[in-house]
Amino acid sequence: MKAKLAVGLVGFGTVGTGVAKVLFRNADVIASRVGALIELVRIADVDVVRDRGLPLPPGILTTDVHALIRDPSIHIVIELIGGYEAAKRVIHTAIENGKHVVTANKALLAVHGEELFEAAARAGVELGFEASVGGGIPILRALTEGLAANHVVSIVGILNGTANYILTQMTQQHQDFRQALAEAQAAGYAEADPTFDVEGIDAAHKLAILVSLAYGTPVDVKEIYTEGITHVTALDIEFASQLGMTVKLLGIAKRSRDGIEARVHPTMIAASSSLAQVNGVYNAIRLEGDAVGDVVLYGQGAGSLPTASAVVSDVIAIGRNVLKGAVGRVPVTSYQASARLPIRIRPMAELTSRYYLRCMVRDQPGVLSQIAGVLGARGISIASVLQQGRQEGQTVPVVIMTHRASEHAVQMALGEINRMTSIVSEPTTLIRVEE
Amino acid sequence: MKAKLAVGLVGFGTVGTGVAKVLFRNADVIASRVGALIELVRIADVDVVRDRGLPLPPGILTTDVHALIRDPSIHIVIELIGGYEAAKRVIHTAIENGKHVVTANKALLAVHGEELFEAAARAGVELGFEASVGGGIPILRALTEGLAANHVVSIVGILNGTANYILTQMTQQHQDFRQALAEAQAAGYAEADPTFDVEGIDAAHKLAILVSLAYGTPVDVKEIYTEGITHVTALDIEFASQLGMTVKLLGIAKRSRDGIEARVHPTMIAASSSLAQVNGVYNAIRLEGDAVGDVVLYGQGAGSLPTASAVVSDVIAIGRNVLKGAVGRVPVTSYQASARLPIRIRPMAELTSRYYLRCMVRDQPGVLSQIAGVLGARGISIASVLQQGRQEGQTVPVVIMTHRASEHAVQMALGEINRMTSIVSEPTTLIRVEE
Repeated sequence: MKAKLAVGLVGFGTVGTGVAKVLFRNADVIASRVGALIELVRIADVDVVRDRGLPLPPGILTTDVHALIRDPSIHIVIELIGGYEAAKRVIHTAIENGKHVVTANKALLAVHGEELFEAAARAGVELGFEASVGGGIPILRALTEGLAANHVVSIVGILNGTANYILTQMTQQHQDFRQALAEAQAAGYAEADPTFDVEGIDAAHKLAILVSLAYGTPVDVKEIYTEGITHVTALDIEFASQLGMTVKLLGIAKRSRDGIEARVHPTMIAASSSLAQVNGVYNAIRLEGDAVGDVVLYGQGAGSLPTASAVVSDVIAIGRNVLKGAVGRVPVTSYQASARLPIRIRPMAELTSRYYLRCMVRDQPGVLSQIAGVLGARGISIASVLQQGRQEGQTVPVVIMTHRASEHAVQMALGEINRMTSIVSEPTTLIRVEE
Repeated sequence: MKAKLAVGLVGFGTVGTGVAKVLFRNADVIASRVGALIELVRIADVDVVRDRGLPLPPGILTTDVHALIRDPSIHIVIELIGGYEAAKRVIHTAIENGKHVVTANKALLAVHGEELFEAAARAGVELGFEASVGGGIPILRALTEGLAANHVVSIVGILNGTANYILTQMTQQHQDFRQALAEAQAAGYAEADPTFDVEGIDAAHKLAILVSLAYGTPVDVKEIYTEGITHVTALDIEFASQLGMTVKLLGIAKRSRDGIEARVHPTMIAASSSLAQVNGVYNAIRLEGDAVGDVVLYGQGAGSLPTASAVVSDVIAIGRNVLKGAVGRVPVTSYQASARLPIRIRPMAELTSRYYLRCMVRDQPGVLSQIAGVLGARGISIASVLQQGRQEGQTVPVVIMTHRASEHAVQMALGEINRMTSIVSEPTTLIRVEE
């Protein structure tokens, strides 16, 4: 066990601190598994003063990112600065300097992944990004290795802990969105600007990465239909509960002959299903393979040490490859470059789904029949109706669960219903239902 | 993509048929991921006549196992005949002939694993056994790769689908053990001789494999305390439910300074916990790592295609190593041979746990105080008592939940209580409670 691999870390924030802790504290068990010492030799950050609460070897900290990523003694560079441009430059420069790279930067990968994948392949270096999806959950390795014998039928995931925390609070504490968001911010689970989390953008980034690895196709994240949770109300969650369902922000991908369905939106699922039990900041991903059937992986989707566990698992995998001269053992994109082909992402209009519709209507005889008539004319069949709290002449909710119907037809029907201003007082709420 | 790897399959039963299906049907996606064709070229079984419901290339079937495992054109041998002696001979001979080996044979690995691990290491070949634990769930790969950055704090798993099916039926359909077992046998989920499944032996085999990989230690399966579910009654399940708990057959391993706790027994867990939601023949394993926290993996723990998914994932991993000249990239035992050390398995007497105790007593004044007195004298403190269905002079159950107590003290106390034959009518039932 004489071999040694040197690691440089760029970005010493929350996750970076976790990575340093894991690499220092678990150096023994990592060496026992890898057969070499994996040594963190350099950490670059703009702030070299703040106490991160762990003892550091003297001189390990530097502000000089450029020297680190060019240091000939360093084998693996970990990029944890986040954001787009600076992170991309760090990764490109590291790759150009022959370094293997590990990153947790899902936004960067979802938007500029193809460019980085190609650069790594061209340079013959590894690019690991297990931590970019599902935090500590080893989901990418499950896709690329553990379940590699399968055609992936579908992926359904709770991919954003912040949104899941907010929805959990809304469900369990009967809070409205604003309250739950404020609480998530106070608890440190949501950022001051929560847009990426609550608008589904972060989940879409992660879904893009999953789809790309599962199906061996480049994915343009802009083609993923993305709807956040800001319009989910306490009332809809209450109705969901009456219907035996729970509202979750899901990333959903399914393969069919016509292409890949890929979408992120609030979704009603059976309260008894495994994903419905996933509460708070936890993430979970259900993969369906044609051989394995359903597999669910569950764990902490964010946080310093869980994310560090994933980052260091990449370092270990790369270390094992370097020691055996097996760089590129698993292609960066999971599929061999020659086998990757663009697969069509299906537009939402092609979707069929069940729908929860909440119409706010004047409580007067004949209203339901008018709404049902619009749906019926578009071929949308009603599975059940909830009409509660009768208050003649007032505005009341009418909740309709449809059978499987066409998204296009439902959108057309809703347009029509929302224009019936004599009986409908506000735009109808639509939440898709997943079996 | 000219490279080709030839696979020979020994044992063409349920799982063998699944493996052949996966290798034939998914050859395209496997080749896209591996960068080589993985071709099933030979299948050996005593029965070459029975129709397994899949088209086979002419001449692929043979009864000649010996020729297959010596065939110089075959790179990887899959052993799926089960049992001990014949399977061991097949694996040893294949290894001696330079073949990489994949097996799903947990019984063999738990009992003769060390011998096989050494033989593979000595011969410089791979030995894959992902399918031996958790069926299709990629749990071993999660331990050895995805979570390799962690010290494993604990492993808690539902490792036997048959036992879980029986307990689920008992819980949901209020059946007794005999009924549920008969139903499991009728449904094909339990064998005519269900001993291995219902006595916890199969779960202990799997736990031995998990402990060995998680902690880098040889494990003598005889040191794992093993208690099955045959004595679990509908009454205890009913009391569990009243206490907000569910009874599961769990394999539990925990590391402490004093060694490793490793045990299989019926266990009460909170009905709201993630493992309590795992019903029917599904398996689930909760791993706690010092960095990642809790990760749960859930899926089908048995069955033709799910198990085949795991078998073929090993074939793929080996194929990738062979193509890169990286055989031994991850040691067979997860830890480097030089880093593996015997770790003490703690005897049950050292355990501390919470306990559910059901005493069957004559319903007369003072009985509870006598029982409580025995427990108190041994330092066992009572958390709650359920005493229902008063029938003066008759035998009634008294259910006691203890606080955390010493297993040794509890066993001594039960011995004493069971000898109080003037008030106690049958041996007290003990079920351990896991937080």
